[in-house]
Amino acid sequence: MATLTLAEAEQILAAAKAKILGWGVGMSVSVVDARGDLIAMFRVDGALWRTALVSRGKAAAAAAFGRPSGDLADNAVIRSLTTIEGGHFVPGKGALPVFKDGQMVGAVGGSGGTAEQDEEAALTGIQAAGLSATA
Amino acid sequence: MATLTLAEAEQILAAAKAKILGWGVGMSVSVVDARGDLIAMFRVDGALWRTALVSRGKAAAAAAFGRPSGDLADNAVIRSLTTIEGGHFVPGKGALPVFKDGQMVGAVGGSGGTAEQDEEAALTGIQAAGLSATA
Amino acid sequence: MATLTLAEAEQILAAAKAKILGWGVGMSVSVVDARGDLIAMFRVDGALWRTALVSRGKAAAAAAFGRPSGDLADNAVIRSLTTIEGGHFVPGKGALPVFKDGQMVGAVGGSGGTAEQDEEAALTGIQAAGLSATA
Amino acid sequence: MATLTLAEAEQILAAAKAKILGWGVGMSVSVVDARGDLIAMFRVDGALWRTALVSRGKAAAAAAFGRPSGDLADNAVIRSLTTIEGGHFVPGKGALPVFKDGQMVGAVGGSGGTAEQDEEAALTGIQAAGLSATA
Repeated sequence: MATLTLAEAEQILAAAKAKILGWGVGMSVSVVDARGDLIAMFRVDGALWRTALVSRGKAAAAAAFGRPSGDLADNAVIRSLTTIEGGHFVPGKGALPVFKDGQMVGAVGGSGGTAEQDEEAALTGIQAAGLSATA
Repeated sequence: MATLTLAEAEQILAAAKAKILGWGVGMSVSVVDARGDLIAMFRVDGALWRTALVSRGKAAAAAAFGRPSGDLADNAVIRSLTTIEGGHFVPGKGALPVFKDGQMVGAVGGSGGTAEQDEEAALTGIQAAGLSATA
Repeated sequence: MATLTLAEAEQILAAAKAKILGWGVGMSVSVVDARGDLIAMFRVDGALWRTALVSRGKAAAAAAFGRPSGDLADNAVIRSLTTIEGGHFVPGKGALPVFKDGQMVGAVGGSGGTAEQDEEAALTGIQAAGLSATA
Repeated sequence: MATLTLAEAEQILAAAKAKILGWGVGMSVSVVDARGDLIAMFRVDGALWRTALVSRGKAAAAAAFGRPSGDLADNAVIRSLTTIEGGHFVPGKGALPVFKDGQMVGAVGGSGGTAEQDEEAALTGIQAAGLSATA
């Protein structure tokens, strides 16, 4: 089974950070494995505390379904998973799954910008690491 | 009191698994008793982690009302039960109650396919065991 | 990365079940992956409801540390993980990790017997599947 | 108010990572602000999932009291904070507070090694960034 390495997560975060610093927006970006557990993350100076948790929650939701977190409807399954995960599960736009050789290996989530910026930061990172957000 | 036996649960799961492997979809199927507690379950290779929890949560919801989980409206009672059970209660389509001699003895829930596949896997299992999804 | 397959989990459960039926004790046995999520489980007729949850909780604890759940002290880390996992994490004797080619791929937990029986059922299953409880 | 910057957190993590890779141990290290919220973290390849959560929980505990997490007794206040924070608060050895110009600005926590390694990784990082673990 393919996995997302720390070296790849660091490449993702470096590219996402460069993009965010260019925007000058207070954001966090989290990289999680296929189960939604953190591999690496950062929060830029001045970003609100919640962005750290929300970026991981969005990434966990994207990984749980292997789909962009923005595509997830607000339904009963999502609400149950949010409760099971103690709230650390956020089905809002801003995270994308990561695929390697066609296999879902994790996800990247942004928080603190607009929903579009959150997702663009994730995509920028994924592409910079030579990985894909689609199977 | 009639009960659902482990032998019956195993028949249900064997037939549901054959159906799922034929589809080639990453799913889980859970069989619960009338209280919603697990009797037996399986998750096929490659199925996402959440399918194990969601299949049981749907089955628990179906057993709690003696009705298909897809028939349950999103109301205050359902949301309270979801919170009481720590999220392990999912009122989404994909689970059916199981009746034996007209008595509700448990439920079967699927997760990981379309809502229709989840429910069809459950029905296939229930019928293969000579049981019924309706009183 | 090596993983525990459903076919292996079924071999584990078949051997554990034979052992338990021989004892005539009301028990459950759960097989989880390396993250603690269920792959398959069974609860024998007449076993108490809690054995389903506790067998999985013990297996999740064994997988989280790659050690027998009975070796885990009652300490702050364990209590935090128990809270994070909504209680589905049990550091009591009765579960063993599963190793394949030297890699931890999951765990097997029993509940409902004595602590020794719970652990013996797990070990019996692991060995019957040609796997190991130690690295 | 003095704060711990992302640049400093990255220096802390780089030095801690070098130390950990030298040991060859599967660990995570988290850097949090004075409120216990994540600034940055990493989990090395092969480290267990729980190390991500526990490293942050220990750092949050150290920051909450401005003391090494290993000095915190198991008392009612600690248990309440652990519950309030949904378990993401771990009073076990392995995290140290970070001081800048005599002010507590955050904390660093390790998980996955021995308690001594967890704390040494934190201290190595703090010193490499020119900061202090004591007021």
